[in-house]
Amino acid sequence: MFNILRTAHVEFRVTDLDASKRFYVDALGFIIIHEEKDRLYLGCYEERDLYSLVLRKTEKPGLGHLAFKVESESDLDAIAKVAQEDGLKHKWMNKGEKLGMGRTLAMQDPHGIPLHFFYEVERREWLLQRYDLYRGARIQRIDHYNCQVPDCRRAYEWYTKRMGFHGSEYTAANDVPKIPGELSAKNPAHAWKVIETDDLWATWLHRKPNVHDIAMMNGIGPRLHHVGWWAYDRLSILDACDMLASVGMVDSIERGPGRHGLSNAFFLYLRDPDKNRIEIYCGDYLLTDWDMPPVRWSINDKRRATFWGHLPPKSWFEEASLVEDITTGDLLSTSDPKFFGKPSFVI
Amino acid sequence: MFNILRTAHVEFRVTDLDASKRFYVDALGFIIIHEEKDRLYLGCYEERDLYSLVLRKTEKPGLGHLAFKVESESDLDAIAKVAQEDGLKHKWMNKGEKLGMGRTLAMQDPHGIPLHFFYEVERREWLLQRYDLYRGARIQRIDHYNCQVPDCRRAYEWYTKRMGFHGSEYTAANDVPKIPGELSAKNPAHAWKVIETDDLWATWLHRKPNVHDIAMMNGIGPRLHHVGWWAYDRLSILDACDMLASVGMVDSIERGPGRHGLSNAFFLYLRDPDKNRIEIYCGDYLLTDWDMPPVRWSINDKRRATFWGHLPPKSWFEEASLVEDITTGDLLSTSDPKFFGKPSFVI
Amino acid sequence: MFNILRTAHVEFRVTDLDASKRFYVDALGFIIIHEEKDRLYLGCYEERDLYSLVLRKTEKPGLGHLAFKVESESDLDAIAKVAQEDGLKHKWMNKGEKLGMGRTLAMQDPHGIPLHFFYEVERREWLLQRYDLYRGARIQRIDHYNCQVPDCRRAYEWYTKRMGFHGSEYTAANDVPKIPGELSAKNPAHAWKVIETDDLWATWLHRKPNVHDIAMMNGIGPRLHHVGWWAYDRLSILDACDMLASVGMVDSIERGPGRHGLSNAFFLYLRDPDKNRIEIYCGDYLLTDWDMPPVRWSINDKRRATFWGHLPPKSWFEEASLVEDITTGDLLSTSDPKFFGKPSFVI
Amino acid sequence: MFNILRTAHVEFRVTDLDASKRFYVDALGFIIIHEEKDRLYLGCYEERDLYSLVLRKTEKPGLGHLAFKVESESDLDAIAKVAQEDGLKHKWMNKGEKLGMGRTLAMQDPHGIPLHFFYEVERREWLLQRYDLYRGARIQRIDHYNCQVPDCRRAYEWYTKRMGFHGSEYTAANDVPKIPGELSAKNPAHAWKVIETDDLWATWLHRKPNVHDIAMMNGIGPRLHHVGWWAYDRLSILDACDMLASVGMVDSIERGPGRHGLSNAFFLYLRDPDKNRIEIYCGDYLLTDWDMPPVRWSINDKRRATFWGHLPPKSWFEEASLVEDITTGDLLSTSDPKFFGKPSFVI
Repeated sequence: MFNILRTAHVEFRVTDLDASKRFYVDALGFIIIHEEKDRLYLGCYEERDLYSLVLRKTEKPGLGHLAFKVESESDLDAIAKVAQEDGLKHKWMNKGEKLGMGRTLAMQDPHGIPLHFFYEVERREWLLQRYDLYRGARIQRIDHYNCQVPDCRRAYEWYTKRMGFHGSEYTAANDVPKIPGELSAKNPAHAWKVIETDDLWATWLHRKPNVHDIAMMNGIGPRLHHVGWWAYDRLSILDACDMLASVGMVDSIERGPGRHGLSNAFFLYLRDPDKNRIEIYCGDYLLTDWDMPPVRWSINDKRRATFWGHLPPKSWFEEASLVEDITTGDLLSTSDPKFFGKPSFVI
Repeated sequence: MFNILRTAHVEFRVTDLDASKRFYVDALGFIIIHEEKDRLYLGCYEERDLYSLVLRKTEKPGLGHLAFKVESESDLDAIAKVAQEDGLKHKWMNKGEKLGMGRTLAMQDPHGIPLHFFYEVERREWLLQRYDLYRGARIQRIDHYNCQVPDCRRAYEWYTKRMGFHGSEYTAANDVPKIPGELSAKNPAHAWKVIETDDLWATWLHRKPNVHDIAMMNGIGPRLHHVGWWAYDRLSILDACDMLASVGMVDSIERGPGRHGLSNAFFLYLRDPDKNRIEIYCGDYLLTDWDMPPVRWSINDKRRATFWGHLPPKSWFEEASLVEDITTGDLLSTSDPKFFGKPSFVI
Repeated sequence: MFNILRTAHVEFRVTDLDASKRFYVDALGFIIIHEEKDRLYLGCYEERDLYSLVLRKTEKPGLGHLAFKVESESDLDAIAKVAQEDGLKHKWMNKGEKLGMGRTLAMQDPHGIPLHFFYEVERREWLLQRYDLYRGARIQRIDHYNCQVPDCRRAYEWYTKRMGFHGSEYTAANDVPKIPGELSAKNPAHAWKVIETDDLWATWLHRKPNVHDIAMMNGIGPRLHHVGWWAYDRLSILDACDMLASVGMVDSIERGPGRHGLSNAFFLYLRDPDKNRIEIYCGDYLLTDWDMPPVRWSINDKRRATFWGHLPPKSWFEEASLVEDITTGDLLSTSDPKFFGKPSFVI
Repeated sequence: MFNILRTAHVEFRVTDLDASKRFYVDALGFIIIHEEKDRLYLGCYEERDLYSLVLRKTEKPGLGHLAFKVESESDLDAIAKVAQEDGLKHKWMNKGEKLGMGRTLAMQDPHGIPLHFFYEVERREWLLQRYDLYRGARIQRIDHYNCQVPDCRRAYEWYTKRMGFHGSEYTAANDVPKIPGELSAKNPAHAWKVIETDDLWATWLHRKPNVHDIAMMNGIGPRLHHVGWWAYDRLSILDACDMLASVGMVDSIERGPGRHGLSNAFFLYLRDPDKNRIEIYCGDYLLTDWDMPPVRWSINDKRRATFWGHLPPKSWFEEASLVEDITTGDLLSTSDPKFFGKPSFVI
């Protein structure tokens, strides 16, 4: 089997590169790696890939693609074979077609989420210990993607069975498991059976050993809900709020800071000038054991979404970014989700 | 003139001492100093007074009194003279009538807020460096009182002119000052004139040199809005949220954590089992210069209440504790405020 | 090839279980999982294995063994085959011979370091979000082992070529690389050649994707230098110092808090009552890319050991724990290291 | 009696303004307020005075003067009267002779420490909530001065009896008090008697209500040991170390970070390019009660100097800055201290 190593970089479509730069670079402290007429390449302190965020000038905002690094060049061929077998739209990009990247496989996942895979990548000098450059939210590295799709079960099956992802945590739309038995750390086999029969509302999937590389949430889709970035620590996230307020960007703060019950992440959600959503977060955990069953949360557990009980704003539930067709560059149309409604404690 | 030194202790009326103990002691980490059948005396790590929080068992919750320490025994007589001249209800309590306290003057301020003043106080061994005892929200010391009164201007005049308090910051109900001229740090004389003509919505008043010992906010009153406690640092406040969630007290979290624009405080508002409100906070500033004009905020400045733009919940605006008559022990009836309405950005 | 997942647990030999308990449980906040007459089993908040620290009562202190979890039961047989081929002392322990563990392979590495490998393990209820239980240094999980051995190159070759470990960083005893060419992020191939020709003073090796699971340092050996534990954050490490001082255990603080240049870790080194050394640390980085060449440090780079320039105390360089023979239980005799001396800036 | 409000600003003599700028502005984040050919005026975020640090170009480094703000203009005349009565060298400076300052009284204290007193001061726009400007060590405000003098008792008597200072803590050169009785929080009267009979090694004196505005330590003097600056929080102090290391100024770190037992301060001592010493610190406590006896520490209490047990380096004990004659501008010669030696645990 091939080995997808980790979340690598994202391309956002934006309508105004200058406005984006003020948000990502001036306020949040992303580092400018390279500038082109229509694209801005940004990176963070801990990263060694050339960049982790591409801002591409377009008419309409949305998601360009989500990229993953794999362990070897031949893994790309193996993934292309999955795309072919599963009848998924895909194409090859030659080395150099994307700045600093080797041969790249672009494909659309079963719901249409645009994914890029690559092995070869140009590295840059490491800034981890250039503390004199640390600014803004002191963002260390890109961490994960979060998508909305109509059929969360379908996404879960494909990512775990065809792509080798492992579930760390999930939300069940059914409050009570459909099969008898106690969910206990002492009985992992039972937990694996419960998830097979649960109505999946959302699922957190990882390859690198923390909570997720990609999450799939029930919703109008395919859409990108947000991209998550790892912050230096909790105080850097509080500092980010103070700085955004100081520079008059307080309206970019959509939700948080707070603690998620699910994933244990200390989070802050921001909207960029085009309403693309990013999360700045820290505080999840090490997860190396592939036989560990995912942690189960019921959708109506009040501490799941916000451990401290705060309700997310309506926009957080309803708004997300359209995603791009890898061949035409058009934004894909969406479908309604399998499950309607919201948690019982949200009106 | 007499010298009121600082906020000293508060007496809350509670209906269930065991429930209060679970909240204040078990969850938040207050230290039990002394227990009586009807009263629980609690303290914090940095304090050297015997206690700073008294919980008194009563039928109905509310505020017993707010106590201040003065610089000398004779200051008490000077304050009593003010009470007499201003026709305010007051009485003397002998040394020992209150646990660990010397002669105490009880009085009702012009709106009826019950105040105690004392000089002599029993000290206890200092726990500042007993880090092994630090628990819960790691609360260091009591910091301030916040009250709602019908006439904020009247309160401001009395506390500043009769009691020697100094205004640090204030909220004007009128967005634009009524007199011409630029408000600038270079022109303090003008700022002093502006506050004289502003419609006062709220005012922060201090004797010890930080933002406040007592704040007065326009509202149905006399009522106590909250008592503020100084936390060890910002992370202790985040930790307090995590701990309250862990022990199933998530509903006690009413507002925050967040940053106030006014006062710059990093705050968290909690409701105890009787709905008495406390604030756990840190992050204001040193203020020693009595000639420094108060910082002016317009009520409709969105960053005033929450620097990061979040709206306070309705309960925070509307609910507060009734206060006690110092002679009868009855809870005082209230009057409507001078100004109605809320900030324009709150529906 | 087999897959060693991660550092799992350590067994320390101690001479006084009560004294150890006061240090690990009362002061540092380790959780008691199970107590036997001669053994104490302890765990941390983020861990899901039954325990991560075993304290075994013996006449003489030292290291019992270092345990790793593998991905599957058959991995154990594959590792046993390596032991056999390489002529290393090894033995099997049946399921249940160790509390909560399945079939376990014990072996001595080429220098004699005692290692345990297991797949099956009893899990316990997760305490990650039981913030009400967080105490002391708020230690989250075991992270890594650090050993002293006479021949660091030999250890590097065996762990990388026979056991599948990957080098993250290393120290060269030669200040200047022996082959020409610039070490640059743009040229990883050259970095791989340089490490092949360097005199290895110390090497950091990992299987889980952060800086290390096991480090090998040049020195009198085989000896265990320390076991590293992951702390909640930097402030928890400062708090640990305050707490140790408060309870009169200030002499257990040997080095730090400070920042390592190598690994970027924010560290604190403590000695338990038997002089076993532990590190409490946080702040390294994600490392998922197996083709990333190790970061090279020259031994005489002053920022390598302590980024802030402080010198480690002599004891930190000279003292370490003897290790146990897996069959006799005797402590192994040691040999002198390949390289003598210390960094040039240490007298 | 007059009222000295607080520590206000310091003038350091430096030999190279550019080198000083790289240290104070580029690395530590002080704000440039005004530049002249021979002077650089710097300030911090929380301050409202025009500046708090003046760097003056001279041939030889040292201390220019230490300035305090008083409550009213007439306080200056009252202090001048003390100078006259006590035969201390003093002179008046007219409004405007010092940038942004009103009429200023310069004087030499009984040991020769050069002091400035002023009431009128130009204010600048407040940067407290300009979090976008926060950089480096995020220093909030100047806090205190620390001097070495030959006769600590003489200094204590003069500052407390003539200038109205209050002692917060002190170090006794005699381990055991010379009069019988237990030192206890319950018996403040006894503590006041003990300090009268103790051999004073060092004393912390304040007017603003925290631990100190000026400390006097036994030593070769008159010399300035350091000026203390208040940091945003403990992590800002750790960050300062990381940043200094990143920009190659690791040699400026002399001691810390660590916790003082005396004062409870979390500290870091730095040496500027001219070896003037500054402390960046946080974590002392509120102290408003003038009748509170000073906390007593014995010089040989190991936790007094560093709560965590680390020894200060020799330079910290031995090196300090010469101070200037207010009339000639020459550096004053020094005398030997009353007590020789160091704490018993320092060789």
